[in-house]
Amino acid sequence: MNRKMVLSLTGRIILLEAALLAVPLLISLIYGDHGTVPFLITIAIALASGGALTLLVKPKNQTIYAKEGFLVTALAWLILSAIGALPFVLSKEIPSYIDAFFETVSGFTTTGASILTDVEAMCHSMLFWRSFTHWMGGMGVLVLMVAIVPSLSGQTIHVLRAEMPGPTMGKLVPKLKDTARILYLLYMALTALEFVMLLLGGMPLFDSAIHALGTAGTGGFGIKGDSIGSYSPYLQWVIAVFMMLFGVNFNMYYLLVIRQFKPVFKSEEFWTYVIVVVLSSAVITVNILPLYANMAEAARHAFFQVNTIVSTTGFSTVDFDQWPQVSRTLLVLLMFMGGCAGSTAGGLKVSRLVLLYKTIRRELRHLLHPRSVGVVRFEGKRVDNSVLVSVSTYFALYMALFAVFFIIVSFQPGYDFTSNFTAVASCFNNIGPGLNLVGPTQSFAGYTPLIKVFLSFAMLFGRLEIYPLLISLSPSTWLKK
Amino acid sequence: MNRKMVLSLTGRIILLEAALLAVPLLISLIYGDHGTVPFLITIAIALASGGALTLLVKPKNQTIYAKEGFLVTALAWLILSAIGALPFVLSKEIPSYIDAFFETVSGFTTTGASILTDVEAMCHSMLFWRSFTHWMGGMGVLVLMVAIVPSLSGQTIHVLRAEMPGPTMGKLVPKLKDTARILYLLYMALTALEFVMLLLGGMPLFDSAIHALGTAGTGGFGIKGDSIGSYSPYLQWVIAVFMMLFGVNFNMYYLLVIRQFKPVFKSEEFWTYVIVVVLSSAVITVNILPLYANMAEAARHAFFQVNTIVSTTGFSTVDFDQWPQVSRTLLVLLMFMGGCAGSTAGGLKVSRLVLLYKTIRRELRHLLHPRSVGVVRFEGKRVDNSVLVSVSTYFALYMALFAVFFIIVSFQPGYDFTSNFTAVASCFNNIGPGLNLVGPTQSFAGYTPLIKVFLSFAMLFGRLEIYPLLISLSPSTWLKK
Repeated sequence: MNRKMVLSLTGRIILLEAALLAVPLLISLIYGDHGTVPFLITIAIALASGGALTLLVKPKNQTIYAKEGFLVTALAWLILSAIGALPFVLSKEIPSYIDAFFETVSGFTTTGASILTDVEAMCHSMLFWRSFTHWMGGMGVLVLMVAIVPSLSGQTIHVLRAEMPGPTMGKLVPKLKDTARILYLLYMALTALEFVMLLLGGMPLFDSAIHALGTAGTGGFGIKGDSIGSYSPYLQWVIAVFMMLFGVNFNMYYLLVIRQFKPVFKSEEFWTYVIVVVLSSAVITVNILPLYANMAEAARHAFFQVNTIVSTTGFSTVDFDQWPQVSRTLLVLLMFMGGCAGSTAGGLKVSRLVLLYKTIRRELRHLLHPRSVGVVRFEGKRVDNSVLVSVSTYFALYMALFAVFFIIVSFQPGYDFTSNFTAVASCFNNIGPGLNLVGPTQSFAGYTPLIKVFLSFAMLFGRLEIYPLLISLSPSTWLKK
Repeated sequence: MNRKMVLSLTGRIILLEAALLAVPLLISLIYGDHGTVPFLITIAIALASGGALTLLVKPKNQTIYAKEGFLVTALAWLILSAIGALPFVLSKEIPSYIDAFFETVSGFTTTGASILTDVEAMCHSMLFWRSFTHWMGGMGVLVLMVAIVPSLSGQTIHVLRAEMPGPTMGKLVPKLKDTARILYLLYMALTALEFVMLLLGGMPLFDSAIHALGTAGTGGFGIKGDSIGSYSPYLQWVIAVFMMLFGVNFNMYYLLVIRQFKPVFKSEEFWTYVIVVVLSSAVITVNILPLYANMAEAARHAFFQVNTIVSTTGFSTVDFDQWPQVSRTLLVLLMFMGGCAGSTAGGLKVSRLVLLYKTIRRELRHLLHPRSVGVVRFEGKRVDNSVLVSVSTYFALYMALFAVFFIIVSFQPGYDFTSNFTAVASCFNNIGPGLNLVGPTQSFAGYTPLIKVFLSFAMLFGRLEIYPLLISLSPSTWLKK
């Protein structure tokens, strides 16, 4: 294993975080809140540690393989969160380091689960930093590094593959660096568009920035006790539509930009996603109709909550924990689906579910006609058998890991089956709220510190799609040469 | 499709049921209860309909393929339950036909979920019939038909494969008929052994018969309001151990009988099963220790409840719904595992989980070393890639169907997330009790008739391992030639 290269790349990631921390520092200076010193100290720590790693570790061999890619990714995300938690502790906004770590992991992984019981008491710069971690974590910090650090190129495929969600990594253009740049440009453009549309709807400047960042990363940290509940219907619709848009594979937007409409029009993943959103919203609208004044209001809340779940964002306009059981069950099941591959959303991803469906259909055909040759096609291309095996294996691993976290979290005293089940589902799929004790109006503050650490790992496992952390934690990675 | 052969085989199954109904008829005569006339009427109906099908439908071509095998199996189980429900309705012990159908499906599928709110009020012959359906459904009614009807031989492989649980069907001996006979002989011997051991422990004759039948089929219908709770510790241990034994692959017993100890000693499935049972019992013993007088009592209840779940039987000695959350979560997750392939237990089966684990391990190796050749070995043999694909596809289909049933059952008014989740988990995995409103001291009586029908189908889907019913319900089976 090329340990020096792993350390060197990690060092550069930490330096990048130091640079990114300048943004909330600026916010604290603008608002004159008490975030300035904490951010300065954190930047100093990041510069010192990142600088030391980059200057002192000089890898002779720049080549890295899959293993190093997974390790760098896992290590980078852990260290980014560990350092990113410092401002909360130093400013005493979140006095406990474990709580701050949970909150920062929840930020970077775009989960949005919070240990804060009164979010409105937090100062501007800290609120901004929370939401800014969403934005960076959504598209990926390593993707950002690849996009902007000039010297990185050949080795980056393994790093990108480990950080980008979905069963396969789509290269938009031959050069990876260009792909990373295009993705970030599209990401910035869409974020800016939402920001402007929120401003146009009369949302204050700061609120618009926060919600645009939180929607773009499909994160879900808000700044109000009732999330998006107190904003106007127009603003709720804007956020709902953008949540849906950020759950779409970014390749679609690139194709639209280069005027290739046909593959978008024929995309199986995109249309499956749309159909699921529309159908689920319709079922829930009918189911919750008695609770609201009219169809329009019920439809808005249904559409918002469906999109908050499938895009794994986690904002809410109402306490869906009060909805009838069918809507609750549907939302919990949608948690596992998540958005499209190549989006900023979490979950299993629509493309994996489509491929699973096709694998099942092939298996049925094979049972009836044992000599049939089962060819599976997806998005117009023949899918290799090894990809299908990977997808169904990933699904099994996903469920196994879910079960393990569910058992661990059940050690929490006083929490019921539903709370624990949905807490794990929500963290693992990077959503935010669950049901009962972790419902939209509740927080994760009640869990013991140890369980908060495990839930933080559930979020990281979910965001990085299991393998990077699993390989990093596996003894064989460290024992064998 | 060979429709005539499907109808003819179904006719013979109904005739077999008529013969089997003679047993509870005898019981009703012995105890002089009011079951006699209902059983006589039901036997008459079965003889008439089964006889008509057998005599009137004369297939020219005796050949059947996989599709017919699945259809016969699905059809047979539906009709067996539809006819088997009649005595309950005719005797007015269960006045509603849908309730009686639910109860009979629950019997044949060895689930043991009951709509009875006062089981002790039921007459002897009806209690016996419920438990007798467990016994027949456990090893399989079609297996029994193959074992005893002389004219069946060549076509039976597809029928047996559709009814016998597990990823692959183990033939003990070259001739299928002999395999079916050996299985039933072993089954009878083990049932008789438990019966004697219960009698020796002072359990009354009738109770011993009921519990031996219910344990053997891993069913779980009891005759007391508190299931096994009021019997002596010795009797509880006997039943717990036999539940565990009936969750073991019957091939193991055959190998022991023919003195081939080595494959048993080296069986990965068997030892995984044992380790899971022992570890789970240990964890739960520690977890529930504060609730009981001493370690011995806690260990007995933990071991009993773990075995009732992994073997998917459903007896209980205590209300485990009152246990701490860790134990409850562990039991619910064990519901999905179930017993070994080739046993009378339900669930996913231990062998499938072992194969999934090995597939995941291979995938991890492949991620790190893309050129590695991943050979998976199980029980000393190399496993074909197509079997691994089938297993992981089955797992995905299993979870998908679970989700569908979970949504449907959530339409039940007034039932919470946990009740519905565990009701479906319990029915689909053929266990019996769940948590909360379907906990061990509750019943399924509260569900609406329509949801009871869906839960009955969940039980059938689980017992027949999905494909037979899925293929029978698929339009393409009926539209295409």
